[in-house]
Amino acid sequence: MKISARNALKGIVKSVVIGAVNDEVVVEVAPGVEVTAIITKASAESLGLAEGKEVYAVVKASDVMIAVD
Amino acid sequence: MKISARNALKGIVKSVVIGAVNDEVVVEVAPGVEVTAIITKASAESLGLAEGKEVYAVVKASDVMIAVD
Amino acid sequence: MKISARNALKGIVKSVVIGAVNDEVVVEVAPGVEVTAIITKASAESLGLAEGKEVYAVVKASDVMIAVD
Amino acid sequence: MKISARNALKGIVKSVVIGAVNDEVVVEVAPGVEVTAIITKASAESLGLAEGKEVYAVVKASDVMIAVD
Amino acid sequence: MKISARNALKGIVKSVVIGAVNDEVVVEVAPGVEVTAIITKASAESLGLAEGKEVYAVVKASDVMIAVD
Amino acid sequence: MKISARNALKGIVKSVVIGAVNDEVVVEVAPGVEVTAIITKASAESLGLAEGKEVYAVVKASDVMIAVD
Repeated sequence: MKISARNALKGIVKSVVIGAVNDEVVVEVAPGVEVTAIITKASAESLGLAEGKEVYAVVKASDVMIAVD
Repeated sequence: MKISARNALKGIVKSVVIGAVNDEVVVEVAPGVEVTAIITKASAESLGLAEGKEVYAVVKASDVMIAVD
Repeated sequence: MKISARNALKGIVKSVVIGAVNDEVVVEVAPGVEVTAIITKASAESLGLAEGKEVYAVVKASDVMIAVD
Repeated sequence: MKISARNALKGIVKSVVIGAVNDEVVVEVAPGVEVTAIITKASAESLGLAEGKEVYAVVKASDVMIAVD
Repeated sequence: MKISARNALKGIVKSVVIGAVNDEVVVEVAPGVEVTAIITKASAESLGLAEGKEVYAVVKASDVMIAVD
Repeated sequence: MKISARNALKGIVKSVVIGAVNDEVVVEVAPGVEVTAIITKASAESLGLAEGKEVYAVVKASDVMIAVD
């Protein structure tokens, strides 16, 4: 499947924190560069997410903001 | 200013494409790792975005999806 | 690729309206049930979207609101 | 009330799963076509959501992605 | 129609800027407090938006971030 | 830090409700005008949010919908 979301950063799952409805997943997309995702628990289970798994962090371009110091 | 968005990836603006209401901004957050943002033209101008500028790509954790091959 | 977005509705592209940075794509997901998407022009081109093409309308569960009359 | 969100799919609530802050609501918008929503628990209660209730699944066009096989 | 989005701020349209696919709408929700929306041109036309019109700025709770100085 | 999100409404935290992964924060941005945010518990803790604290409710323009009666 190919998706219209412009950003698909390849990485490794560093941690998964379990909630009641949502889980928090941290992905390392480059050495020292981490991306945190909140996804439904059902999705996390369906994807078989666990520490060390190779995944993509996918983000729509319209969901990215730009900040400057 | 400190913000609740969990992800703030430091990077360099690679390109800015101008639209009527929105602009498209590409940020390199690690060597070979790029993040594309769509932001309002007014914001891009207000932030003084241009190729080579140091910026942060900011994303809420609930806007990140996880995909597996 | 398998993604954490909970909703992937199979359908047929009914129309594509071209903008400067974004395109508008209408997908029929069931007889008489249409879903409209705004995606970047670059994504629409990369996916080869055109009237009649079979696609999925993908939506995160946290982006769906519920309304009652 | 009439809203700018382009998508308002009429359907029937199939299930409601209760969380600490958020609930998960599944709506059938056509025979065999389901949409899952994560909304705040307070909203679910305020709308009186329960299995069998007629509702709309409302989604902004910019929150819909397109995928192809 | 009653919707699950937690925030519906009553206000007056101050300006509408027209784009190719999207329009930008500024709403004053309290004296000196303005909220800017980007919505599809089709929605803006369908709602009959124009300077001075009474509207609601509607935002999902999960789309609000918190920042501190 | 200056961010591309068009809306940053100054206000006072009225309440914080704690969840497993997410917290709900209510901010008064003008007398009688409240904005509710759902943010990660980790963010709420990191920002030191508590009743009475001065904060900004930050929202991207593309996350604001417009409704009319």
